[in-house]
Amino acid sequence: IAKEVAKLLEMKAQLGGDEGKHKFVLKTPKGTRDYSPKQMAIRERVFNAIITCFKRHGAEVIDTPVFELKETLTGKYGEDSKLIYDLKDQGGELLSLRYDLTISCTASAEGSLSPLLPSFWGTAVPFARYLAMNKITNIKRYHIAKVYRRDNPAMTRGRYREFYQCDFDIAGQFDPMIPDAECLKIVHEILSDLQLGDFLIKVNDRRILDGMFAVCGVPDSKFRTICSSVDKLDKMPWEEVRSEMVGEKGLSPEAADHIGEYVQLHGGLDLIERLLQDPQLSQNKLAKEGLGDMKLLFEYLTLFGITGKISFDLSLARGLDYYTGVIFEAVLLQQENDHVEESVSVGSVAGGGRYDGLVGMFDPKGRKVPCVGVSIGIERIFSILEQRVEASEEKIRTTETQVLVASAQKKLLEERLKLISELWDAGIKAEVLYKKNPKLLNQLQYCEDTGIPLVAIVGEQELKDGVVKLRVVATREEVNVRRESLVEEIRMRTSRP
Amino acid sequence: IAKEVAKLLEMKAQLGGDEGKHKFVLKTPKGTRDYSPKQMAIRERVFNAIITCFKRHGAEVIDTPVFELKETLTGKYGEDSKLIYDLKDQGGELLSLRYDLTISCTASAEGSLSPLLPSFWGTAVPFARYLAMNKITNIKRYHIAKVYRRDNPAMTRGRYREFYQCDFDIAGQFDPMIPDAECLKIVHEILSDLQLGDFLIKVNDRRILDGMFAVCGVPDSKFRTICSSVDKLDKMPWEEVRSEMVGEKGLSPEAADHIGEYVQLHGGLDLIERLLQDPQLSQNKLAKEGLGDMKLLFEYLTLFGITGKISFDLSLARGLDYYTGVIFEAVLLQQENDHVEESVSVGSVAGGGRYDGLVGMFDPKGRKVPCVGVSIGIERIFSILEQRVEASEEKIRTTETQVLVASAQKKLLEERLKLISELWDAGIKAEVLYKKNPKLLNQLQYCEDTGIPLVAIVGEQELKDGVVKLRVVATREEVNVRRESLVEEIRMRTSRP
Repeated sequence: IAKEVAKLLEMKAQLGGDEGKHKFVLKTPKGTRDYSPKQMAIRERVFNAIITCFKRHGAEVIDTPVFELKETLTGKYGEDSKLIYDLKDQGGELLSLRYDLTISCTASAEGSLSPLLPSFWGTAVPFARYLAMNKITNIKRYHIAKVYRRDNPAMTRGRYREFYQCDFDIAGQFDPMIPDAECLKIVHEILSDLQLGDFLIKVNDRRILDGMFAVCGVPDSKFRTICSSVDKLDKMPWEEVRSEMVGEKGLSPEAADHIGEYVQLHGGLDLIERLLQDPQLSQNKLAKEGLGDMKLLFEYLTLFGITGKISFDLSLARGLDYYTGVIFEAVLLQQENDHVEESVSVGSVAGGGRYDGLVGMFDPKGRKVPCVGVSIGIERIFSILEQRVEASEEKIRTTETQVLVASAQKKLLEERLKLISELWDAGIKAEVLYKKNPKLLNQLQYCEDTGIPLVAIVGEQELKDGVVKLRVVATREEVNVRRESLVEEIRMRTSRP
Repeated sequence: IAKEVAKLLEMKAQLGGDEGKHKFVLKTPKGTRDYSPKQMAIRERVFNAIITCFKRHGAEVIDTPVFELKETLTGKYGEDSKLIYDLKDQGGELLSLRYDLTISCTASAEGSLSPLLPSFWGTAVPFARYLAMNKITNIKRYHIAKVYRRDNPAMTRGRYREFYQCDFDIAGQFDPMIPDAECLKIVHEILSDLQLGDFLIKVNDRRILDGMFAVCGVPDSKFRTICSSVDKLDKMPWEEVRSEMVGEKGLSPEAADHIGEYVQLHGGLDLIERLLQDPQLSQNKLAKEGLGDMKLLFEYLTLFGITGKISFDLSLARGLDYYTGVIFEAVLLQQENDHVEESVSVGSVAGGGRYDGLVGMFDPKGRKVPCVGVSIGIERIFSILEQRVEASEEKIRTTETQVLVASAQKKLLEERLKLISELWDAGIKAEVLYKKNPKLLNQLQYCEDTGIPLVAIVGEQELKDGVVKLRVVATREEVNVRRESLVEEIRMRTSRP
């Protein structure tokens, strides 16, 4: 009903005053936004930190088209999701935009889509299709791409219909837990680098969850739905989750209580050791395997020196249809001074895990390629940094210009153009005002406004003397520099410390 | 008919052997491709050169959504182009993918779309919408984005349905021809930097064309179609173009001959001066204005020292609906040793011009924002460089890894992980094989295969001595480096000259 009203209002808006053909609705599509130069500067910073980290770990990069054959995207789940953007059938192939279902699933709780669909998997399906199609069994790659979701946007919280996904994955048959540990190291490096505040990386394993449910007496048919209840433990107290399990989902109170004992546990190597001794879990093959690998993982994480921010957490339950081993999720912890209502975490900013089965689904012969990967929730990170910049009134430069070529007198446009051409050819980032006779004051003001640190001033006298007056905007200091030394002088004065 | 057959074949392929749900057609959508790590490495090189140039000229960067309201994209021409990808109507707004019509127009000659539609204008409409929406009257920005065109792809020639567009534009009210000259300088810098071989930038002005047609006696109603004939002069001899004008388009032979005298002219300042004296052109207000500005432009280009590769060419006629002043197009000239059949140019790799009217069409009050811009035909450049790499068998590195952390003996995984963690934390790009006990030979082979220049080898003795054996892959030279100096040593040995 609300949707119909919105539609009518939209139609009305579009009809508008029909004063002619020059009437456009000036907006971006619902749930999308333009990035201004300032936002792009922040985005570039974040991408730089992330890409630098991926490259530090020896990753290659690939790219895939923004759309895929519809069957490639929906083949696995077969559902005709309303969250996927389809392209119009204009003859030829049926296509859909690369999509991501993450946050919507948590948000819409028990909505039309299973809340157990994988989190942060924007480019996983195109990646699996790429590996199967090219018969690649071994690759470490990252992929940064826009993904799409026809969801109800909540733009202030960084939830858009078009958003970036930053994925890093290691595919191949390797000795256990080494690539898995590297993924966690990468998350640790990126979140430390970006200085987003304190964070915690929760880790669990699908096999441990499966084993735990089995020993607690959850019937196979209820695995998924009980798992989705457990997944809510970061937002609800255990009592509520328990009553959902028993009341709504018909689990026996004994089974629920049994689960409760496990899922409230979190810790490190000590907890893993304890559970390996647990009389019931240790008898379950899957759980035992999972716990053994978890122990190995923590040993590697200890060598990496990052266990301080990693918690083995039995309540972490995400993406079970998709993940086959380790799963993890990084959350930002609330700063003490933040006046936010939520109590513990301000949300997930990265997630991932092991998915050994996905590529095999795309291979005609079902050949499996084990994969483990991590996805950085870049939009939430943008939102946090944008808000921080707003609050701090930090001045963000949107250009990298080193010097403005200016003149103090009239009729020197030609001389300015000659000089700036020399600077450009020497690789100096330089600007000039597009005016024949700009006032010196306006030229200096332009530097103040845009953060250009230096001004190279040409004048009659300087030209005669073969020098350029170089002015430092911040200090107003002025020095005459011989023309042949100008490039070197500018480089020296603008090289980063 | 062929289309219907293709459709049926496609349906047949899709039905395939229906052996179950795990059956996928493993392909990317028609006209699109994945980028492999090698292709991405080439792409990064090209983007780096282009972005470095844009930043050198003080440009900011913006981004807009991949789709726009359909009316935003089609509003201007009102046509329901088959070349535009529409999104399916899933309720809500009607959307289309950002598009570009460039090469298709030249290619399909007199196809369904007017060949006079602007060339290289992928992000121009979103840019104009952005300026009008945010009431921006002054910006110098670049935008690198994927654009879409439902055309018949010709992938070997770099014609795709999904492709990148690199646009640089200067918007604002400025003194004449200064930003226009900077756009040409940018094209000159980029094409020189990329070392694509010899090139020529053809320049003309819409006002000169309009004035020329007027003095030649072309009736207003025939302006567009005659203009499209002129635009073919780079592919056809004048005699054929003339007979098209007279035979098909009903122009008088006198008018055609008169046009012929002009459009075969090209040159520099001398030609401009001569035309400024031309008894007829000098009487036409538009032509006189255009020629005056062309003279100014060439004076600035002389100061920039780039007139050697710039030709004022009266046959250049592109995008007249859109451009209002200067127009230009850069073509690669054929290398003498190339055995290509085409005779003069191997195609357009950049184009642009002045479009002072576009933003006003999006502004509710019709406020104009003068703009001049350039678009780099990045896909054709990729194709050329990819082919060159194939031909030369140059080995392209797809990672930047500086060092492989290896071991000569067994049971040293922990030591390898400890060392690589130290290196990562110090910012060194490092890899390790994901094996508990890899053979040294395999580790060295991995370096050969991927181009990693250094190997840091840990062994029992080295650990005791507090050193690491550093091996240079190319020379097989080995030195023991104290552990605390290792980072510095690696940095020194892998810093670029």
